[in-house]
Amino acid sequence: MNKRKIINDPVYGFISIASDLLYDLVDHPYFQRLRRIRQLGLADIVYPGALHTRFHHALGAMHLMSQALRTLQEKGHMIWEPESEGAQAAILLHDLGHGPFSHVLESVVLPGVPHEAITLVMMKDLNRQLNGRLDIAIQMFEGKYPRKFYHQMISSQLDMDRMDYLNRDSFYTGVIEGSIGADRLIKMLDISHDQLVVEEKGLLSIENFLHARRLMYWQVYLHKTLLSAQAMLTQILHRARELAAAGEQLFATPDFARFLYNRFTLADFDNEPDLLAAFNGLDDNDVWASVKGWKTHSDPVLSTLCQMLLDRNLFKISFFNEPPGEEVLAPLRERLTARGISETDMKYFLITGETTNWAYAKEQDPIRVKMKKGNLLDIADASDIPTIEALTKIVRKYYVCWAKNVSLRG
Amino acid sequence: MNKRKIINDPVYGFISIASDLLYDLVDHPYFQRLRRIRQLGLADIVYPGALHTRFHHALGAMHLMSQALRTLQEKGHMIWEPESEGAQAAILLHDLGHGPFSHVLESVVLPGVPHEAITLVMMKDLNRQLNGRLDIAIQMFEGKYPRKFYHQMISSQLDMDRMDYLNRDSFYTGVIEGSIGADRLIKMLDISHDQLVVEEKGLLSIENFLHARRLMYWQVYLHKTLLSAQAMLTQILHRARELAAAGEQLFATPDFARFLYNRFTLADFDNEPDLLAAFNGLDDNDVWASVKGWKTHSDPVLSTLCQMLLDRNLFKISFFNEPPGEEVLAPLRERLTARGISETDMKYFLITGETTNWAYAKEQDPIRVKMKKGNLLDIADASDIPTIEALTKIVRKYYVCWAKNVSLRG
Amino acid sequence: MNKRKIINDPVYGFISIASDLLYDLVDHPYFQRLRRIRQLGLADIVYPGALHTRFHHALGAMHLMSQALRTLQEKGHMIWEPESEGAQAAILLHDLGHGPFSHVLESVVLPGVPHEAITLVMMKDLNRQLNGRLDIAIQMFEGKYPRKFYHQMISSQLDMDRMDYLNRDSFYTGVIEGSIGADRLIKMLDISHDQLVVEEKGLLSIENFLHARRLMYWQVYLHKTLLSAQAMLTQILHRARELAAAGEQLFATPDFARFLYNRFTLADFDNEPDLLAAFNGLDDNDVWASVKGWKTHSDPVLSTLCQMLLDRNLFKISFFNEPPGEEVLAPLRERLTARGISETDMKYFLITGETTNWAYAKEQDPIRVKMKKGNLLDIADASDIPTIEALTKIVRKYYVCWAKNVSLRG
Amino acid sequence: MNKRKIINDPVYGFISIASDLLYDLVDHPYFQRLRRIRQLGLADIVYPGALHTRFHHALGAMHLMSQALRTLQEKGHMIWEPESEGAQAAILLHDLGHGPFSHVLESVVLPGVPHEAITLVMMKDLNRQLNGRLDIAIQMFEGKYPRKFYHQMISSQLDMDRMDYLNRDSFYTGVIEGSIGADRLIKMLDISHDQLVVEEKGLLSIENFLHARRLMYWQVYLHKTLLSAQAMLTQILHRARELAAAGEQLFATPDFARFLYNRFTLADFDNEPDLLAAFNGLDDNDVWASVKGWKTHSDPVLSTLCQMLLDRNLFKISFFNEPPGEEVLAPLRERLTARGISETDMKYFLITGETTNWAYAKEQDPIRVKMKKGNLLDIADASDIPTIEALTKIVRKYYVCWAKNVSLRG
Repeated sequence: MNKRKIINDPVYGFISIASDLLYDLVDHPYFQRLRRIRQLGLADIVYPGALHTRFHHALGAMHLMSQALRTLQEKGHMIWEPESEGAQAAILLHDLGHGPFSHVLESVVLPGVPHEAITLVMMKDLNRQLNGRLDIAIQMFEGKYPRKFYHQMISSQLDMDRMDYLNRDSFYTGVIEGSIGADRLIKMLDISHDQLVVEEKGLLSIENFLHARRLMYWQVYLHKTLLSAQAMLTQILHRARELAAAGEQLFATPDFARFLYNRFTLADFDNEPDLLAAFNGLDDNDVWASVKGWKTHSDPVLSTLCQMLLDRNLFKISFFNEPPGEEVLAPLRERLTARGISETDMKYFLITGETTNWAYAKEQDPIRVKMKKGNLLDIADASDIPTIEALTKIVRKYYVCWAKNVSLRG
Repeated sequence: MNKRKIINDPVYGFISIASDLLYDLVDHPYFQRLRRIRQLGLADIVYPGALHTRFHHALGAMHLMSQALRTLQEKGHMIWEPESEGAQAAILLHDLGHGPFSHVLESVVLPGVPHEAITLVMMKDLNRQLNGRLDIAIQMFEGKYPRKFYHQMISSQLDMDRMDYLNRDSFYTGVIEGSIGADRLIKMLDISHDQLVVEEKGLLSIENFLHARRLMYWQVYLHKTLLSAQAMLTQILHRARELAAAGEQLFATPDFARFLYNRFTLADFDNEPDLLAAFNGLDDNDVWASVKGWKTHSDPVLSTLCQMLLDRNLFKISFFNEPPGEEVLAPLRERLTARGISETDMKYFLITGETTNWAYAKEQDPIRVKMKKGNLLDIADASDIPTIEALTKIVRKYYVCWAKNVSLRG
Repeated sequence: MNKRKIINDPVYGFISIASDLLYDLVDHPYFQRLRRIRQLGLADIVYPGALHTRFHHALGAMHLMSQALRTLQEKGHMIWEPESEGAQAAILLHDLGHGPFSHVLESVVLPGVPHEAITLVMMKDLNRQLNGRLDIAIQMFEGKYPRKFYHQMISSQLDMDRMDYLNRDSFYTGVIEGSIGADRLIKMLDISHDQLVVEEKGLLSIENFLHARRLMYWQVYLHKTLLSAQAMLTQILHRARELAAAGEQLFATPDFARFLYNRFTLADFDNEPDLLAAFNGLDDNDVWASVKGWKTHSDPVLSTLCQMLLDRNLFKISFFNEPPGEEVLAPLRERLTARGISETDMKYFLITGETTNWAYAKEQDPIRVKMKKGNLLDIADASDIPTIEALTKIVRKYYVCWAKNVSLRG
Repeated sequence: MNKRKIINDPVYGFISIASDLLYDLVDHPYFQRLRRIRQLGLADIVYPGALHTRFHHALGAMHLMSQALRTLQEKGHMIWEPESEGAQAAILLHDLGHGPFSHVLESVVLPGVPHEAITLVMMKDLNRQLNGRLDIAIQMFEGKYPRKFYHQMISSQLDMDRMDYLNRDSFYTGVIEGSIGADRLIKMLDISHDQLVVEEKGLLSIENFLHARRLMYWQVYLHKTLLSAQAMLTQILHRARELAAAGEQLFATPDFARFLYNRFTLADFDNEPDLLAAFNGLDDNDVWASVKGWKTHSDPVLSTLCQMLLDRNLFKISFFNEPPGEEVLAPLRERLTARGISETDMKYFLITGETTNWAYAKEQDPIRVKMKKGNLLDIADASDIPTIEALTKIVRKYYVCWAKNVSLRG
């Protein structure tokens, strides 16, 4: 075999691909597509280094999975070879169903279809192609595999997905304060009563992890400038769909055009045999190429928004602790009207939204600590550390975005 | 002033933008375009982390310039404020004229027009917009500024361009052995007789620098798989131009289409006033979107090559110490013929080329060392280190690329 | 001049010594002594990498000072050259008065004399030798210099001392979760109303700083094993002094012997002209050599404790939320008695103590934030972040150390 | 079991102790002594961060051994559990026999007894204490174990000892250009014909390794200032032994005194049952404490040298390509005579020596490369890289050290 099995990774040094099945998955066009989808969408508009892809993230999560499974083995837990491969395959494929700019465009491109659902469609299609070799991976992904901790390693508040993306996002943005210490966290994992747990001596590591996550939210994921750019791109896509619905011609790759001019449901993936291939044709380049093609479109709303985004001429944005009322919005509407924005177009240039930062969701999916005496406690109860409690509070913010110096093209 | 003046950089921590002029340059659409052009083109096909852009590289080079100027000041050299700003502006803008996949596509998209020439066109255009505030920067860039060492800091074997790209490419590929120790190198810089020189105690650092550069060539820039992907993309563009010349319809953004369907010279930038804007409309997304649009084109050569590249189904490649003769090429041609490749299409599926790795070009542009006694020596003479001599030898390799298991579409 | 002015530092890359005065200070035997005193005393017993010295820390703090002063200059504040040198000199010398294992042995070797007082004695002596060139530095150190922010940079909750030691301790222990992001913190510093303040956009950085500090306390400074080793060393020194007072012969270097056999006060540094030289003769080697010399001393208490410490055969230690009562202590006393420990020796083998972790001392010395509107707020009020409040709570713990399997020598 | 099995390491993150035997070895006083012996002796006089100990190095080498064995397993080689433990034990213990400042003092403290011989004495003693559990480790260490590649992993030009110390020394000195890329090197290891070999695709990594090693020699191990300090310490010890032989009283810990006043051979370790314990009582503190004790000794040569070393008032040193003749030495002798140095004392203040830097010793112990075709080649033959050849040349330098401004004490 001459397969390339070691991949350079600035974050972890090297990532090994441990089996032929995993290699074949990495090599498949479904997975190769992820090379062209950035993990953080538009975030490079704030952090120019944040260009890493879902491809690299998925490999990194697989790497952490292999590290975590080794830790569990060293602590005496039996991990069968097919389980190890299954868990690695599942985490490798967990993001297959993401489209470009997923968290932004999901609601526009495939409204009502969560990316997890498409991931499952793709995993099952791959499983057919591979004659059932993904059976265990799919069971683990769906939470149907008997040993439940595998699912928790794939999807929970301590899963390998989260650990890699926090780690990787911190690294590539250069926000080093967001570093979670994945190495140490993983050494602290254990299994108790078929649950993924953390050893008591890992308490400080978990606290640091929650704290870093919270910091990454405010510093990166919910960064004002990024929210503004995302709002603009969302409105561009809304406008494009509106024009498409009205029969207007829109520059787009064939695959992207299909999604702009139609409104698909999950069931359509069963009914239209080539729809999955079309979906797999979508990546960041389709969106950017369209934005570039549309900057000269005859519709002034569309072309204006596209040119502004390309030149990084972004909407102003303000945060509020309460939903902003008319005392905030009315003056903005007036200013935009004065700049020639009609009432029907107003929604494209004045946008409201809300956002929350929930560092630790205690109720839904607790992080369990295995105390030295053997009992399991929720992290918030295990710690006499006052900050953990503080991290369980939801912080909710409201925002208003608007085009300060807009002048409509045309 | 509310300008954002500190930019996170995973490589150096933070990059400060030191003046309003520099800020305005960064903010300009000419510079913002570089956000959408990767420094290493297709290299992420081998090193998935190598996604960094010319935007980030240019900022990094400006940062190193400011560090180097500070070192020179600390050693007692007078650096005037306008010179400092000019040198930073010049290095910031030195790559403006790069198109997407520049080293690959220069010869296809704008044959005969080197990117440095377009950089100068753009700098002069910016200078007009800025009422002459780039006069010094342009003089330094062109080598016309009286104090010659500034030009050497912008363009020579020890320039800040090279230091940043080697550093940055090493960082993002994860090839840490290619780390050049830019920090220390810069501390070793000095000026003597208006020349940029290295202090004698920096000899080992220079040797390490040349060695690292050589390693980066073989490990990254001339990596077999990358050369193969580049050859494929070049042939795709050649084919597209051929079809365009024959009047075929080709999916492309308006700006990209203009370059596909025409053959411009440098003079055309003067004659066609909007050509520069069109050039500034080009970035990596145009190329990728076209490759994606062309994967279903009716021309089987074009569509086959595009689909292969998208799926990372790359040509085989072999290196030779001598130009490969018929004993190598004839059997390959036969195999391709057997797979249905016609003689006229053969050049798209069987490609030869050569490549060289010249770690230190002694004759053209020596690296000068200031000995403790005050005299200047060429690095190769200053050192009694046998390896420097070795690094001045050109290593030349020849390669053959071919589509092993090709089956033409359609 | 041939002075070596750049020092390699694994933490910051390079540290530059910016003036001849600073160079002469570094070169002075008072400062060179710090090469032989570890920053973290016995901490390598838990973290084998934690061997860094007060020498390196002081250089690092000077480096951060120069960075911080540059930031302030870039924000438009006037920093005169003598001030810059003074501030760097002051922070460079701020730890001169530390003896070996300072936080442990201060109370034993020089009871009642705080290390800051000796630092001042030494700085003043240096100032005499240097003909008053440290006048400004000493004023800044004492808080008597008119511009108060300099003193805050030398000694406050945001001083360069703290930033370097947290950074450096985190680096050398390998507790990367304790990384404070000094680079960014320093970029966020400003001056307002002659106070050292943090810009509002640095809120998250400060929060991260406080959090990291807290983590370093529990993970490093108050690590159980370290507290146990410190308690043992303290008892060794207490016993040695007791024997010395009784006229026993004790192996020790001449300088160390002087402090073992006498009880000096601060006034003695004035009265005994060579006492300062003797103090400057003390470093970690004196203590370790004595421990090694004493492991065969005829006093069984002394020799037993020394051999146990050398072999890393440490006391057991337990933490309590309340001061442990007789229900805890009585059984331990019984066990020790059973192993031959007499009532008079009991205090050497059963030790109680307390320890606190106060991440942010709001009342004493607030960290001030300069809001965008210009007003100053205490960090705890500036933030709507619930965790800051949590960090202002004192966490106090009580501990009991005891020699579990002790068997007295001899 | 409550054994601490994970050790923080700034270099590798974490080091796991994989078995109870390994844990017991780490815990043994023989190994704990290495905590008090620095890897690089006096090098912190140039690189203040270079304080790491043989303790940490040995743990690091064990860590790399476990990584390398895992790589070999993944490539299909059978590694039995007892072999894995044996190889880790052997590398863990390989430096047991080092005394303080070993490369400097070996010839003074135990003339004619190489440290490897003492290591073996200590390993065998440990084996007795552990009832033969080190049999395999000792066979591997001595090269008597049937599968020879294990010995090569412990002692050869590619052994784990060298990889860790180069890596670690580069890290702690801050000479990052000396980074060898241990991670990648280890991934490239393989076994062929029972030999440790490197895969062909690791050629560049090996070249980088040899280059880095060469750089570390000149930049660190043979740094002028360090050689000077070493020469001084050597002369201090020579003088002390001379005085001891003459019956003079010398301050020293009991264990160190035993070695100063006697001249032991390897056989004495058999004859004097407590000699090994005395040897195990030696560490850096004994030497430093004596230097400090001797700075006021009545012998002016001894006290002068000690005070100079403590205050970092070092000998001047010059390098020569040829052994320096009288034209160099005579004037220096004159100057020293003029400063009151007698002819008999001259050897303590004017020292000559030589030093070599041999990056790759081709003849003795070649590094073998496994070519893609399966054959093995010496690295120098496998590579068409001109620099490898250059690295096989010995570079020899001669030096003269002398006390420029000496004034004898007393």
